[in-house]
Amino acid sequence: MFNEDELNGNSVASKSNEANLTTITMVYNNNYVKYNLYHISIDVFYSKYGDFHTIDWQRDLARDRIRHKYVVSRKRNIPSGMLYSMWDAGSGWICVLMVGLAAGAIAGIIDMGARWMSDLKDGICADRFWLDREHCCWSANDSVYKDADCSAWSSWPEMLQFTERNFLYYLFELFFYCGWSLLMTGLAVSLVKIFAPYACGSGIPEIKCILSGFIIRGYLGKWTFIIKSVGLILASASGLNLGKEGPMVHLACCIGNIFSYLFPKYGSNEAKKREILSASAAAGVSVAFGAPIGGVMFSLEEASYYFPLKTMWRSFFCALVAGIILRIMNPFGSDQTSLFHVDYSMKWTFIELIPFAGLGIFGGIIGSLFIWANIKWCRFRKTNKTLGSNPINEVLVVTLITSFLSYFNPYTRKSASSLIKQLFDRCGPEDYMMDLCDYQNKTFSSDKSAFLQLIVALIIKFVLTIYTFGIKVPSGLFVPSLAMGAIAGRLLGITKDGIQSSIWSCQIGKDCVMPGLYAMVGAAAVLGGVTRMTVSLVVIMFELTGSLEFIVPTMVAVMFAKWIGDAIYRLGIYDAHIDLNGYPFLDNKGEYPFSTVAVQVMKPLPEKSFVLGGDPLRVLTQDTMTVSDVEMLMRETDYNGFPVIVNEENYFLVGFCTRRDLQLALLSARKTQAFIVPNSIVYFTSDTPEDQSADPCPLRLRKIIDLAPMTVTGQTPMETVIDMFRKLGLRQVLVTHNGRLLGIITKKDILHFMKKNDNLFV
Amino acid sequence: MFNEDELNGNSVASKSNEANLTTITMVYNNNYVKYNLYHISIDVFYSKYGDFHTIDWQRDLARDRIRHKYVVSRKRNIPSGMLYSMWDAGSGWICVLMVGLAAGAIAGIIDMGARWMSDLKDGICADRFWLDREHCCWSANDSVYKDADCSAWSSWPEMLQFTERNFLYYLFELFFYCGWSLLMTGLAVSLVKIFAPYACGSGIPEIKCILSGFIIRGYLGKWTFIIKSVGLILASASGLNLGKEGPMVHLACCIGNIFSYLFPKYGSNEAKKREILSASAAAGVSVAFGAPIGGVMFSLEEASYYFPLKTMWRSFFCALVAGIILRIMNPFGSDQTSLFHVDYSMKWTFIELIPFAGLGIFGGIIGSLFIWANIKWCRFRKTNKTLGSNPINEVLVVTLITSFLSYFNPYTRKSASSLIKQLFDRCGPEDYMMDLCDYQNKTFSSDKSAFLQLIVALIIKFVLTIYTFGIKVPSGLFVPSLAMGAIAGRLLGITKDGIQSSIWSCQIGKDCVMPGLYAMVGAAAVLGGVTRMTVSLVVIMFELTGSLEFIVPTMVAVMFAKWIGDAIYRLGIYDAHIDLNGYPFLDNKGEYPFSTVAVQVMKPLPEKSFVLGGDPLRVLTQDTMTVSDVEMLMRETDYNGFPVIVNEENYFLVGFCTRRDLQLALLSARKTQAFIVPNSIVYFTSDTPEDQSADPCPLRLRKIIDLAPMTVTGQTPMETVIDMFRKLGLRQVLVTHNGRLLGIITKKDILHFMKKNDNLFV
Repeated sequence: MFNEDELNGNSVASKSNEANLTTITMVYNNNYVKYNLYHISIDVFYSKYGDFHTIDWQRDLARDRIRHKYVVSRKRNIPSGMLYSMWDAGSGWICVLMVGLAAGAIAGIIDMGARWMSDLKDGICADRFWLDREHCCWSANDSVYKDADCSAWSSWPEMLQFTERNFLYYLFELFFYCGWSLLMTGLAVSLVKIFAPYACGSGIPEIKCILSGFIIRGYLGKWTFIIKSVGLILASASGLNLGKEGPMVHLACCIGNIFSYLFPKYGSNEAKKREILSASAAAGVSVAFGAPIGGVMFSLEEASYYFPLKTMWRSFFCALVAGIILRIMNPFGSDQTSLFHVDYSMKWTFIELIPFAGLGIFGGIIGSLFIWANIKWCRFRKTNKTLGSNPINEVLVVTLITSFLSYFNPYTRKSASSLIKQLFDRCGPEDYMMDLCDYQNKTFSSDKSAFLQLIVALIIKFVLTIYTFGIKVPSGLFVPSLAMGAIAGRLLGITKDGIQSSIWSCQIGKDCVMPGLYAMVGAAAVLGGVTRMTVSLVVIMFELTGSLEFIVPTMVAVMFAKWIGDAIYRLGIYDAHIDLNGYPFLDNKGEYPFSTVAVQVMKPLPEKSFVLGGDPLRVLTQDTMTVSDVEMLMRETDYNGFPVIVNEENYFLVGFCTRRDLQLALLSARKTQAFIVPNSIVYFTSDTPEDQSADPCPLRLRKIIDLAPMTVTGQTPMETVIDMFRKLGLRQVLVTHNGRLLGIITKKDILHFMKKNDNLFV
Repeated sequence: MFNEDELNGNSVASKSNEANLTTITMVYNNNYVKYNLYHISIDVFYSKYGDFHTIDWQRDLARDRIRHKYVVSRKRNIPSGMLYSMWDAGSGWICVLMVGLAAGAIAGIIDMGARWMSDLKDGICADRFWLDREHCCWSANDSVYKDADCSAWSSWPEMLQFTERNFLYYLFELFFYCGWSLLMTGLAVSLVKIFAPYACGSGIPEIKCILSGFIIRGYLGKWTFIIKSVGLILASASGLNLGKEGPMVHLACCIGNIFSYLFPKYGSNEAKKREILSASAAAGVSVAFGAPIGGVMFSLEEASYYFPLKTMWRSFFCALVAGIILRIMNPFGSDQTSLFHVDYSMKWTFIELIPFAGLGIFGGIIGSLFIWANIKWCRFRKTNKTLGSNPINEVLVVTLITSFLSYFNPYTRKSASSLIKQLFDRCGPEDYMMDLCDYQNKTFSSDKSAFLQLIVALIIKFVLTIYTFGIKVPSGLFVPSLAMGAIAGRLLGITKDGIQSSIWSCQIGKDCVMPGLYAMVGAAAVLGGVTRMTVSLVVIMFELTGSLEFIVPTMVAVMFAKWIGDAIYRLGIYDAHIDLNGYPFLDNKGEYPFSTVAVQVMKPLPEKSFVLGGDPLRVLTQDTMTVSDVEMLMRETDYNGFPVIVNEENYFLVGFCTRRDLQLALLSARKTQAFIVPNSIVYFTSDTPEDQSADPCPLRLRKIIDLAPMTVTGQTPMETVIDMFRKLGLRQVLVTHNGRLLGIITKKDILHFMKKNDNLFV
């Protein structure tokens, strides 16, 4: 009944039966070795996938295991094999170390470049033009640097000898302000359009897809990296409502991708490469916020798909190295270990959790509103021809409006990160930010100018960010969201402080509330509402501010933001953009209570094939098809692979053969084996009839088929099938019934099915 | 060829063909509803597994999805269904909230109880006997509390009017010291032995197994909880080398288990219950160290097996609540937010990473040595009759030796946590711990008493902890490891400080090195060497000490400890104990490069069944076996389930039937259907020959078989099979070849196979 040879892999291997074995010549580090693989058709070196295809995790990981076995087998050769084995074991660490170093350095350069060019909007350091405003003032020995004035720094109108601050002065200032912004974004969008179209946007949605196994050629390439770095400096300097933080993750992943090619273990294996990319994503967040633990959590929670624990440790290392390098470069120009270091001496009280929850609800609402509006606008851009074909014009218009509107409001005019820093700060007696704490010196109602200006700033930022996120320049969303939330939180804090101080007789700004804490909580809430991050967001906020004390308020706000947000608009901004772009991303978070079984989802559907006579299942038989039959099958269909069955009568499953392997095998057979003719029979069996010296010489292709395809029975619940796709990283699964092949479910079918069900239930 | 009804689940469902359907009456919250499940034989309420069995994750999760569908279907009934649905959605949060509250409270009580009883070893608070030493001295208004003396606290000899500190005084003190310790451990071990044998040890190895799906009845029960709480206080007070931290995780899991029964969604579903237990484990670490983020990381990295992201967020919440409650109770009696708060003003230099790496190497060596010795001793205890049957005697002997030896060394005499606190501290000018900083006032070589005493303390602790971990009292390992590491680190720090200050002219204790930092890094290194934790350990250390600055030194040390440790002794202490006890734990970390395929591991092995005629595969056929055949099969074998095939000739797979379902079905058929006789044919098919009114009336059991068993082909690499077991939580997988059933691989086979290969390769 059974072929003993087949059942017994090892004995087959020892017989070295060439028909059963794939003998692969490994070209590895200039050493040619033969490596016997029984029944597994895998070329150990390069897994080539088409653009916009999904990788086969199991296959790639199997390839890596074979490579690993080879390395282990050489270990006995002392010292070369031993050293090589050590190099192999350490290469992952070396790679992430290099990624960390590079990511930290690049982040530092971008930070400094963006700051310098951003300050050029307003003026220039007269003596040392290469310094930004802050360093310029420092260098001039203005020991206590204040936000207002410093002698060494000259504004543009001053350079043009406008000494008096009259109408003309401000007009010139406005002119320079807008002109510089337009120049910056014009340059950025042109660079992106000409050299690297993938360099625009935040990149996080695409990174999520890539980490889940999707291939987008060039998305993490060197051109994207260079153009995005330059474009990011330019775009940040323009004063648009965009952040550097999301693109930083993309840049770090580019670095990871580029360095991974130095290590064939990772560069030539798409599944293994994703381990490096996960670590890179962590490093990206680490340098963006100075938050190494938050970076790892982000990579784990938001970005990564396949995240073994080994990867976590390596990601942590990568994130930490990147963070240290950035700190050594010290682009923030401060001694603080965290970006928005806060140092509140006060404690919050439990009753304050109510306003914090309120901020969370606000964050959820405004986040959902933002996502909804942004997606609407992006969809409009996609469908509308005028808008879609003129990205440069769109960017310039948005820039002009942004810079014009921003100029007149002190809060929108300054950079988002210094605004956040200011809003997070407390109102101490020695405090310089008098405008925000001004109300404390008067009665609450007398002077509301700062209050009103903050409201205006919030509205401007909200509306403009909707139109900004998605334009064709590198643009992130973290900092604009944080800024919106910080403004809202500060507003609430000021209001509450004012009301409380007019009712109770607490000393204003000291005992009552800390408006800075409210700003911090609000920032977390809005960012939570927009991105729907949870643990990683809390950890990032905690590392951003350096205060373990305020983890509870942050958490309450983020929790409410997530709940309310999910209730209003189900997808976070990244998932919404993935959905908008139609990427094949299999979400690994949701739980889907379907009442469907595999047989109802597979192709061909049973009704069609057997009742209505629709498109039948296309298969290969193991020993009856001729070369021309196979070629015909490949011409007629565009499937990526075909199941191999025993024969057309009973459909017993033998294995699976990918289109690419089949193509290559036929091509090489035609070239090298002259006796193969169109009516040669193709044998996928292990025992070809060797004695038959029949005229059409048979073509033996046993070695190219995968004898271990994943199968499920027709009655398997779809939840289980989806679970298998997610956790095992499958590309397709074969559906059987009593051992007979019924159909096939591909990742596309799964995504289609999930989308259909989403529409039904949600 | 195919039965259309079967292919088309939905149409079958609508026909409500009783033979095909399992109609389950759901008794849920006093509402009786009928719920139709096609082909899936699942009782929705109680999944009963035997003691020491492994759960079937897919089955339990499927049960929960059905429950969820039922809840969703009732959602339209406003308000009852709506409210019920909300309650259902929120119950997980409410449950972890309760767990967090309880865990925090229990931890506070245990901390305070242990401290009070521990201080009773030395003396008593004369006026207020219910106060521990620290609070006693505080209450007496000794404004600056010093380690040495305070008037309100009386030692036992003082109580007995020994005013002079002569030999008799010390003898009495020693007597009380040892006596009290013996009394404490005697009580603890008796309680454990009589009431709850599971209450001994750390519990973390077992928690790991339970979280991976293993069932140990009573391990998380209320008796274990009560006895372990009391025993932990007693054991901690005895001064043995054990910590409260590991058992705290066990206690938190007990709380999680007990509370989960209030919520049938979790209590009645073993797979879902593990979500609560994961959160509880996080809360346990959170209260043990005051480290909520570290707790989540610990649960993720070390304890949990199945950890969906939803669980992570909930774990974080649980850990945070527990941490807050503990802080409100304030058992540490300090304002600090962290247990061993450090406040070093100095920065470390990059060159110091070399001694830190050295500490890591030391940690790896000493950790491995510890594990090796401890496992040796535990194995000896298991096999030796005298020792194994006298746990009380063993405990008392260990206690006597420990308390006698500890009495004479100031560092072993004080509690481990205050020792760690002292070692972590810096030597400031205002510092009270003169003994440790003493060398700074003299030349390095003149006074080495503190140095030598520290070395003695290290040796005592190391040797005694080997014999202590594993005795029959509640005992953790975290704090003893930290203490050992802190001593070693401090020794290195002092040495380095001394050498440097004698070579360079840096101001001792200020510019040269911080011995406290070395102690901290050493503590992390030894704990890393013993437990082989990585990210979670770094995060815990960082939260323990509250300093983000020293994350890099800690990480370097932990990394080296892990590498060196893994090279010397492959398993961490918990995994080693799992191995020692023979628990079926499928490690989810390692990668195993096997060159084996499924067919070589399955039972029966092909050689045996077809060549040597060994034990053949035992199966059920779908329509030829009689009731007596089935009963015979069940009597003859003790397998937990049987594959169902079409017939003995071709072995085409139909489904899988568990032993328990079969037993129950036969039992109920015998009871309710009188016409079932021993030679009634058992039909597992969907279409029983209803027209045949043949004499032995057929028994239809289609509904009890699982029509969606997991299958792999015989040529599937074992790595893939293991991956499926791990990620999908399987109990068995069926091996097929061309649609025919070849054999079965159970979790036991996998574990056996992995163990065999471990021995081969490592």
